[in-house]
Amino acid sequence: MNYQVAIIGGGPAGYTAAEKAGKAGLSVILFEKEKIGGVCLNEGCIPTKTLLYSAKIYQQALESRHYAITIPEVSFDLKRMVARKNKTVRKLTLGVNNKLKLANVTLVEGTAEVIDAHTICCNEETYSFENLLICTGSTSIVPPIKGLDSIQYWTHKEALDVKELPQSLAIIGGGVIGMEFASLFNSLGVEVTVIERMSELLGSMDKELTARLREEYEKRKLTYLLDTEVTAVNAIEEDKIQVHYKQGDEENSLTASQLLLSVGRKPQLAKLGLDRLNFKRTNRGFIEVNKQLQSSYANIYICGDANGKSLLAHTAIREAEVAIHTILSKPDEMSYRAIPSVIYTNPEFAGVGETEESLQEQNVNYKKVAIPLAYSGRFTAENERVNGICKLLFSEDKTLIGAHVLGNPASEIITLAGMAIELKLKAEEWGKIIFPHPTVGEIFKEALQ
Amino acid sequence: MNYQVAIIGGGPAGYTAAEKAGKAGLSVILFEKEKIGGVCLNEGCIPTKTLLYSAKIYQQALESRHYAITIPEVSFDLKRMVARKNKTVRKLTLGVNNKLKLANVTLVEGTAEVIDAHTICCNEETYSFENLLICTGSTSIVPPIKGLDSIQYWTHKEALDVKELPQSLAIIGGGVIGMEFASLFNSLGVEVTVIERMSELLGSMDKELTARLREEYEKRKLTYLLDTEVTAVNAIEEDKIQVHYKQGDEENSLTASQLLLSVGRKPQLAKLGLDRLNFKRTNRGFIEVNKQLQSSYANIYICGDANGKSLLAHTAIREAEVAIHTILSKPDEMSYRAIPSVIYTNPEFAGVGETEESLQEQNVNYKKVAIPLAYSGRFTAENERVNGICKLLFSEDKTLIGAHVLGNPASEIITLAGMAIELKLKAEEWGKIIFPHPTVGEIFKEALQ
Repeated sequence: MNYQVAIIGGGPAGYTAAEKAGKAGLSVILFEKEKIGGVCLNEGCIPTKTLLYSAKIYQQALESRHYAITIPEVSFDLKRMVARKNKTVRKLTLGVNNKLKLANVTLVEGTAEVIDAHTICCNEETYSFENLLICTGSTSIVPPIKGLDSIQYWTHKEALDVKELPQSLAIIGGGVIGMEFASLFNSLGVEVTVIERMSELLGSMDKELTARLREEYEKRKLTYLLDTEVTAVNAIEEDKIQVHYKQGDEENSLTASQLLLSVGRKPQLAKLGLDRLNFKRTNRGFIEVNKQLQSSYANIYICGDANGKSLLAHTAIREAEVAIHTILSKPDEMSYRAIPSVIYTNPEFAGVGETEESLQEQNVNYKKVAIPLAYSGRFTAENERVNGICKLLFSEDKTLIGAHVLGNPASEIITLAGMAIELKLKAEEWGKIIFPHPTVGEIFKEALQ
Repeated sequence: MNYQVAIIGGGPAGYTAAEKAGKAGLSVILFEKEKIGGVCLNEGCIPTKTLLYSAKIYQQALESRHYAITIPEVSFDLKRMVARKNKTVRKLTLGVNNKLKLANVTLVEGTAEVIDAHTICCNEETYSFENLLICTGSTSIVPPIKGLDSIQYWTHKEALDVKELPQSLAIIGGGVIGMEFASLFNSLGVEVTVIERMSELLGSMDKELTARLREEYEKRKLTYLLDTEVTAVNAIEEDKIQVHYKQGDEENSLTASQLLLSVGRKPQLAKLGLDRLNFKRTNRGFIEVNKQLQSSYANIYICGDANGKSLLAHTAIREAEVAIHTILSKPDEMSYRAIPSVIYTNPEFAGVGETEESLQEQNVNYKKVAIPLAYSGRFTAENERVNGICKLLFSEDKTLIGAHVLGNPASEIITLAGMAIELKLKAEEWGKIIFPHPTVGEIFKEALQ
């Protein structure tokens, strides 16, 4: 059969595209080799946030005396915590499946292979398509560390399905995933050491706020090794892993009960038969796409992590929308100007747009305003013994170009700054918006004064 | 001495105007007869939210088992809860005072009286001004209920400084203030009955969502009497108040240990000497102001509750900004199109722009989208056993004109809709904004599909 839209991969990009195209009346077929929802829903965004929320409730109970609440005793049930996570994922997966059904999307379980620019093969059947969206996501990078094959280490998957807490946990890689797991296991009482190759955690996030977050977790006994390269690992006894590392010229080692690998992710494009086609590639080897997410084959779109641009679920969702709009001949184009990044630590940390570092690298002049979150009455009312920062960056004509917030609920309010940046609002224009009082979001208005 | 800007009243309108004018280099004098911060900071927004947050932590502890956290025992310390509230208020008041000092604002403690359109008298001294901002706020309405004088009832002030919890509490008036206190005392285990004259609570909030919130609190044993007029009250013994009421033709009564009066607020303009001037008045008797908040005397501005327009702190703040911009000859005008209303119950309830009721009254056609908050992965991950609703209203050309959310954190995400409404975004334009995943705010994006 011939489909107007074929989609490989049922993660955020794939299911968004499928639903949107189906609802618009196009005939849609979606190939998924594992579970609908992809990494994000099954083993990424949603399960981590579900566990982190339980950890937050636990931590709040431990600190409840600051709010005049007395809780003499608190404990958690790890097995039930993981079961709740699984239930949440099931509920949401069911929701996505229902939406796809309502949109008349044909689902095929299996590994799809591209035969030519209009044909796919899956489970030994052949399907032809007018348009193809490759939404195959990304996979964890496994670094070439000596001895890694010989030990039982964790990736995010094992960490999410933890059966018993390790006494200590070494995390290789202090990016978003590493830091969210560090936060989770630290909250639950595990001794955590984060080992990061770079001189600061969290890659491209604002450096000043990252340092503040790091210091906050240092107070909670989380240990960091920055500028540190792991050279080898080996098991020394049951439940003991030795991690050898190099800091500058110095070599050293630590032992931990468990090791979690989180050094990053890379686009997943192998075994798709893509070498049968002749895609134009970027310098980094990714398939090149235009602002409509079209590859050099105008009917083949690459959306989400697979195109190597941003590796975030919400980017994937928007890219999928742009691709389907393009197929429907509705003018649209992808903008990467205001893609928020959120770290679901406690406190949360979020940023959108330019950072001071990115601006300095581009030699762009900017104006900076940074104020404590305590300037927000609501933040003060709800956050005893912690502070936070809100940093706004403006271009010389006072257009908002970057915003960075450390403090709860950064995840939810950062979108306000994202809207302002995407819409290219000047400070004066954004300042005319009425922010309800008292809210933490008001901190932006305060910073605009 | 002659001041460029004189301000009567140091609440949100007054302190915002004073700081802004002072920072702009104008000479500013601010008269406050009680405490800087006004009702909002000292006995309104901030203290209620501080107490409500303690109550939320308490309630979360009671429900923690749904998140796999075990808390065998939890209690609260009312005295420390109130002390924490007082500390929060002190901290924020100090902050406002510091800002005023930094902005070189002259503070005068005392009751100011207007002598003529350029002169004020306070503490027997005379001050002349070029511009005057009247920011005197509002006072609680005391309804003419028989017997009220003879009993010791609470207003919000006594409720905030509660020494001992009453066993039962009758609240006259189910508006925002009534409902927030109902939520607070209900959480703390007090038997609460809310008596409301109208057929639904919360005045002009979306009726469908209000009903859902009411039902939610009914499950928690909060009692309501709607369409009910209180006719008389009397003390029957120590700590027992009898409340007589009429529902249609039926007369009845209830007894409660305490009575809280929250029937509304009215602009506070008496004893200011304003009758010496000849202001143009609105039909409702308020001083008429234009879009720059100028009265019929171009150098006299009425900002905040005092002008009777909106009675919300965030409206007051924005009005004060517009007034000062006008004085500084910066073109600006007040827009009331997107003023969020927030009820800090748990779950929170917030709305902005038009409601279905307001549109039907104006005979305006609209398109409505309402979806459960459970469509947001984060909401589902963080909210066991409760749901919520997000309702968006669009004009026929698909411009967003109203948004209503029941569910946490409605207070923080409603501003996203406020921005869209104020900027007159169409569904398609708002949909191009990238909302970070997973957040509750994404629910708007979901509703735009």
